[in-house]
Amino acid sequence: MTDLSTHPTQAASLWLADFSSALARQDIDAAIALFGAESYWRDLVAFTWNIRTQEGPEAIRAMLKARLADVQPSAFAVDGQATEAEGVIDAWFTFETAVARGRGHLRLRDGKAWTFLTTMTELKGYEEHTNERRVKGAEHGVQRGRKSWLEKRQDEEATLGFSEQPYVVIIGGGQGGIVLGARLRRLGVPTIIVEKNPRPGDSWRNRYKSLCLHDPVWYDHLPYLPFPNDWPVFAPKDKIGDWLEMYTKVMELNYWGSTTATKAVFNETTQEWEVSVKRAGRDIVLRPKQLVFALGVSGYPNTPKVPGAETFKGEQHHSSRHPGPEAYAGKQCVVLGSNNSAHDICAALWEHGADVTMIQRSSTHIAPSDSLMELALGGLYSEQAVKNGIDHHTADLVFASVPYKIMHTFHIPVYDAMKKRDADLYSRLEKAGFMLDFGVDGSGLFMKYLRRGSGYYIDVGASELVANGSIKLRSGVNIERVNERSVTLSDGTELPADLLVYATGYGSMNGWLADLISPEVADKVGKCWGLGSDTPKDPGPWEGELRNMWKPTQVKNLWIHGGNLHQSRHYSQFLALQLKARMEGLATPVYELAPSHHRR
Amino acid sequence: MTDLSTHPTQAASLWLADFSSALARQDIDAAIALFGAESYWRDLVAFTWNIRTQEGPEAIRAMLKARLADVQPSAFAVDGQATEAEGVIDAWFTFETAVARGRGHLRLRDGKAWTFLTTMTELKGYEEHTNERRVKGAEHGVQRGRKSWLEKRQDEEATLGFSEQPYVVIIGGGQGGIVLGARLRRLGVPTIIVEKNPRPGDSWRNRYKSLCLHDPVWYDHLPYLPFPNDWPVFAPKDKIGDWLEMYTKVMELNYWGSTTATKAVFNETTQEWEVSVKRAGRDIVLRPKQLVFALGVSGYPNTPKVPGAETFKGEQHHSSRHPGPEAYAGKQCVVLGSNNSAHDICAALWEHGADVTMIQRSSTHIAPSDSLMELALGGLYSEQAVKNGIDHHTADLVFASVPYKIMHTFHIPVYDAMKKRDADLYSRLEKAGFMLDFGVDGSGLFMKYLRRGSGYYIDVGASELVANGSIKLRSGVNIERVNERSVTLSDGTELPADLLVYATGYGSMNGWLADLISPEVADKVGKCWGLGSDTPKDPGPWEGELRNMWKPTQVKNLWIHGGNLHQSRHYSQFLALQLKARMEGLATPVYELAPSHHRR
Repeated sequence: MTDLSTHPTQAASLWLADFSSALARQDIDAAIALFGAESYWRDLVAFTWNIRTQEGPEAIRAMLKARLADVQPSAFAVDGQATEAEGVIDAWFTFETAVARGRGHLRLRDGKAWTFLTTMTELKGYEEHTNERRVKGAEHGVQRGRKSWLEKRQDEEATLGFSEQPYVVIIGGGQGGIVLGARLRRLGVPTIIVEKNPRPGDSWRNRYKSLCLHDPVWYDHLPYLPFPNDWPVFAPKDKIGDWLEMYTKVMELNYWGSTTATKAVFNETTQEWEVSVKRAGRDIVLRPKQLVFALGVSGYPNTPKVPGAETFKGEQHHSSRHPGPEAYAGKQCVVLGSNNSAHDICAALWEHGADVTMIQRSSTHIAPSDSLMELALGGLYSEQAVKNGIDHHTADLVFASVPYKIMHTFHIPVYDAMKKRDADLYSRLEKAGFMLDFGVDGSGLFMKYLRRGSGYYIDVGASELVANGSIKLRSGVNIERVNERSVTLSDGTELPADLLVYATGYGSMNGWLADLISPEVADKVGKCWGLGSDTPKDPGPWEGELRNMWKPTQVKNLWIHGGNLHQSRHYSQFLALQLKARMEGLATPVYELAPSHHRR
Repeated sequence: MTDLSTHPTQAASLWLADFSSALARQDIDAAIALFGAESYWRDLVAFTWNIRTQEGPEAIRAMLKARLADVQPSAFAVDGQATEAEGVIDAWFTFETAVARGRGHLRLRDGKAWTFLTTMTELKGYEEHTNERRVKGAEHGVQRGRKSWLEKRQDEEATLGFSEQPYVVIIGGGQGGIVLGARLRRLGVPTIIVEKNPRPGDSWRNRYKSLCLHDPVWYDHLPYLPFPNDWPVFAPKDKIGDWLEMYTKVMELNYWGSTTATKAVFNETTQEWEVSVKRAGRDIVLRPKQLVFALGVSGYPNTPKVPGAETFKGEQHHSSRHPGPEAYAGKQCVVLGSNNSAHDICAALWEHGADVTMIQRSSTHIAPSDSLMELALGGLYSEQAVKNGIDHHTADLVFASVPYKIMHTFHIPVYDAMKKRDADLYSRLEKAGFMLDFGVDGSGLFMKYLRRGSGYYIDVGASELVANGSIKLRSGVNIERVNERSVTLSDGTELPADLLVYATGYGSMNGWLADLISPEVADKVGKCWGLGSDTPKDPGPWEGELRNMWKPTQVKNLWIHGGNLHQSRHYSQFLALQLKARMEGLATPVYELAPSHHRR
């Protein structure tokens, strides 16, 4: 190793030593002096029992004042070699608190911390039984009356939810519920997952036939059991469905398929939820201490009320209920919307010989999949990244280390490059009348996803069909009225229609709370998702984290889990640790519980 | 790095350079001069299209004379750092042949090769679609009439074995058939696995209730999809069953459960096998080019014909058909045999309150599981080994690098240590009358497994029950006669019996060939398993490899696959490559096809 490469590690070590020593002496001034004027401390549960970014030295000071004595951080140590690029030193470190072990990331600029990430990895005394801690399985020696693994599993299935109550109920058995269930299983937290479909993976299987993941394999691994190394880059939906089903089985999850939750009430006397479910025709009340909603960021359909819709003699449905293109060859199909689902559905209809028109109401961000892979994800989630030593565990933490406040500045150059790289496609789309955007500040797809969960299409082929007119386009208009056999657009023109698909997106996840618990509880929790960026569909005030996701809400013992595979994988870790700590009766004082904003 | 640690790598590099140069010039004398007077070249398919150990310089010379011009080996390069211990340098290397890439291992002693291993890893132009070669999955772009992944899988299931013929049929869908099927799937070799039980994993599920793997998790991984890091050290049988079922599904194997093979005939005209199977009541003839038997090393029950057995009024069965202990509380049970199954069955019967007597006919090797793990397997297959950088891929190759001719010398010290470590147990067993051995040359369990596949018990608790008399023991006797309600032993004593279990082991795997093809074909293949060591139950002549396993047999297009999880995992690689090469029409001249010995 040369001096040049060891220098960043030394710098990071020195900074950590100073920081650690200041914290040990409870010298908050000295600790704050190590942060730059522009600085961020993002904490995932380790210091705050919350998911929270402290923005600037004064916010960091306030957090330390409130939490330092209780947290008792110690044993900060650089992990591996730090690196330096463009004046910024990047370093990994490990640390401990009174109750937990953690892993963190540090960016130093001019000798001071610019970004600082602390994450909890495990609770002391409640570690997962992995590697040298794994259970023996065979209980060697001979004992009369012992039960086999199978008998114990069968006993658990027969009693949990009946004579024994789970500590956690997760409503929603899609990818989010399943991976959270796996983490809770490893932590020994009795959990039931409630899912309306019969089999794990059905929420993928039930979608339209041509669907493949829009994110590449390196981004999509589930916890604990990565995909085999021949897994396709973009997995077909039924293959993912089978994987989730297998995963649920081998992770030994208590998965109640064909089960519908009908009502949930928190009983203040018993301090338990009473969750009414209907399972195979039988009414059952589950009484968990903690209730998690994992019904999907894109789960609560948002269907506009268009005048005359009730008179339509054709078929109409929200995109989430679209059965696929098979029945519509030769039919006249109108798809309202111009985001991912709209594009995918239009393309599949066209493939099957339908006459398709897309109605684009407002501008859309188009990110060609190849460009997105190479320019946006490639550094962290790609075969090359893996070769560079960045597996998805490391990539997740790098991703988490960038504060939301400045994340757009990391993304803008990526989409500037995309504009150049895909200039030809963009120009042909515009010629076809398609209204393009790259986000209000040019920060592109992922910021749109975080801020509003919508407004884009990851192009896997449909944009070409729009550009060449195979998919007909009407842009800058809306459907003003639905007639018996047609729709009237806001410019007065009329389109004949046999099929009308509302690819109009999804509402806030607290819609589910309103339906299942009460509108009051939904409003007490407030809007879920979005950063408060005061950009379209993400009203302020600024919160700096995704609202209500994976962290305590204004409603006790009620949690929201969701996100894409990357987020479900990574943030389920922190939600699981919060739930485990509560089950074990550890003190979990939440620093700065976020106030609720906006109703639904 | 210090000079001391780079020196072995330089020595290995120099040796390989000399060797490579000699081979490139076709200078066999020079190549042979690099081998010691005691030296071994073990080749797994790469040079010989066979699995074969050349023992000594003259055997190596003969092989090179026959094969060098055809193989065209090149590009030998040390992989990683070589190490030195007790005067032996260990090094890994990679190489190529005209048609393949390979990996090898070298032990140098006094500057000359002592052991040399060459293994084929992939065929050029027929690599697995892994990592940067993985398929895209989503076919981006829009194409009319394309089929989804699910439709293609359904088409394959509907046509393979009917309008399309598989290239390979594997008879037996246990772990062996499944892992070979997975490798063939990755290589694009159309394959059907025929299994009499309904579901993958049933051959484990159907065994006695308390069964757990006797080998630890690090030894047991299947190819491509290692167990999660919380997998128990000794997995319970039903958990392994579920894993195999999941694996079969996600590896997309064409697995015909509830299907019995009734007859197999090779049609010389069409050069195809005609394999008659009964599937869900329907008679089907499969016509593969290659037929693999994967019915288990311990699969063909060996039940002695004891006079009077037909008069017995109790229940009697071979250990492989033992249903578990539940029905036998309070019953008088006699178990004939003293190896693994006998001990496991006796212990489970005792646990359930039966009166149990074990009949030990001849001496048995007892290896306490903990000792076996620490002394015999720990260096290669353990959490510590993984921490030392030896994962199961590396461990498999280290294992393979030791020639069978001298393997016992590696094992004798291990069992000497075991004798000391477990002296107390051994002494108490002997006091109870148990006849102990450590193999004819003291080389212990694994050599017994290789030579005869029997003669030992991995102690997971039953030995204590034998030592303390809970399991009654009669040793040095056999059952001479079975009566209506008792057995008469060879010493004239009589034991009352409600249950009689023949834990009498298994016959050679070519027993299956006799049943399914013909006795003539079975005898043409000859004995399967065993090294020809001229030790008990392993008659000579010396072959130096496991007879007929994973390599060409005397019967064209007929293959035997099997072994424990470690062997199934590792040797399925070489069997799959041999089958793939034949499917692609590559020349596969087999060097020194082993003659057949012994009938069954």
